[in-house]
Amino acid sequence: MDATDAQTACFEAGIKFGTLYHQFAGTPVSPASADSLARAMEEAIENQPYCESVTVDVLVEALEAELADSAADYTELTGRFVEVEMTIDYEGHEVRTRMDMQDGYPLMRVVDVDPES
Amino acid sequence: MDATDAQTACFEAGIKFGTLYHQFAGTPVSPASADSLARAMEEAIENQPYCESVTVDVLVEALEAELADSAADYTELTGRFVEVEMTIDYEGHEVRTRMDMQDGYPLMRVVDVDPES
Amino acid sequence: MDATDAQTACFEAGIKFGTLYHQFAGTPVSPASADSLARAMEEAIENQPYCESVTVDVLVEALEAELADSAADYTELTGRFVEVEMTIDYEGHEVRTRMDMQDGYPLMRVVDVDPES
Amino acid sequence: MDATDAQTACFEAGIKFGTLYHQFAGTPVSPASADSLARAMEEAIENQPYCESVTVDVLVEALEAELADSAADYTELTGRFVEVEMTIDYEGHEVRTRMDMQDGYPLMRVVDVDPES
Repeated sequence: MDATDAQTACFEAGIKFGTLYHQFAGTPVSPASADSLARAMEEAIENQPYCESVTVDVLVEALEAELADSAADYTELTGRFVEVEMTIDYEGHEVRTRMDMQDGYPLMRVVDVDPES
Repeated sequence: MDATDAQTACFEAGIKFGTLYHQFAGTPVSPASADSLARAMEEAIENQPYCESVTVDVLVEALEAELADSAADYTELTGRFVEVEMTIDYEGHEVRTRMDMQDGYPLMRVVDVDPES
Repeated sequence: MDATDAQTACFEAGIKFGTLYHQFAGTPVSPASADSLARAMEEAIENQPYCESVTVDVLVEALEAELADSAADYTELTGRFVEVEMTIDYEGHEVRTRMDMQDGYPLMRVVDVDPES
Repeated sequence: MDATDAQTACFEAGIKFGTLYHQFAGTPVSPASADSLARAMEEAIENQPYCESVTVDVLVEALEAELADSAADYTELTGRFVEVEMTIDYEGHEVRTRMDMQDGYPLMRVVDVDPES
């Protein structure tokens, strides 16, 4: 069957998460540069179609903890250091999504679909 | 409302497309290296959860046409040079997807959701 | 022979250019998001060792010209849309570098090495 | 002063390393997909100017060790899982380079410049 609008909204939400993660993973990041990276990630993804809002939190405390055990003063961005909330609207179907660490992995998930179908 | 399994399947499909595109866009590519890049893209994405199969076609003729007008013998991978088919299976819900050029843009879309909901 | 310090300074400069270009190429970008992306690129690369300063100019006029011919309101970052100046200092050897478009290609080059060897 | 040919050769070598690392870091990788990824990395970078040869070794044993402690069956490519040798030739100046882990970090370095200047 063709996708419903709610299904397409979920597909579009997934595209944005894959984009955000794989475009920016590996970026050199430090506590001092966390904020500019977060803003750039938000504004880059908000360019994409159907993307209502993106909030990126680069976790400065987690970066500081990583670097405390390190000879370096920066590291590479990975899922341990970032939390994301994103809202997609496709043809009136709003999908709220979230990425954060669950059981040691960055988990991308749909929080809410409204209306349901 | 919580996402249905079919909606989650579509979300997962979107993640794979965003990953594939933004991990590999920008890769130096030539007609001679098109095949190794396509295989790596397929096998990389097939590692991801719920991903049944990925077929990537790097379009050698489109590369050749681009390079015929160019002083260079390679270019950067972008949507003009790649077609993708992907099947996701999440909890028995199969989503077939496709990316190819439509009206001058690489369009990622859901072809079919089975069963419907 | 082992690399001289001036040669190592040039090697380090090249690493930063490859990083900057291939980390950020493909990022969705519009005139409105050009500035946040430029700041993130600068601060990300300045984290890397021996990097004294990075100045990134995302070319809003070039973006606007591209989008004027387009149905979309954003595009993907590529060398046509960015100019970079970077200064590396390795053990007192300063290397100034630049990337801009030359003959239709983004050319990364060493502008100056001081002292010479 | 302008860069010497040997310095430019080192700059070009650095570009290739930055490209290789930041294009492919973050790619989903497993022991089964290690080989296709390594071949694609080699052939992609060999497209770039002045690049004589690239050898990429994705470290299957290191991947297996990582995954043995994990609920996942793949991970993201990072410097812990890859060793690279690369030879650049710019105007008769050959630069041999290498990346591998040193003191817990992936270190990119010039092994040899021939002739010296």
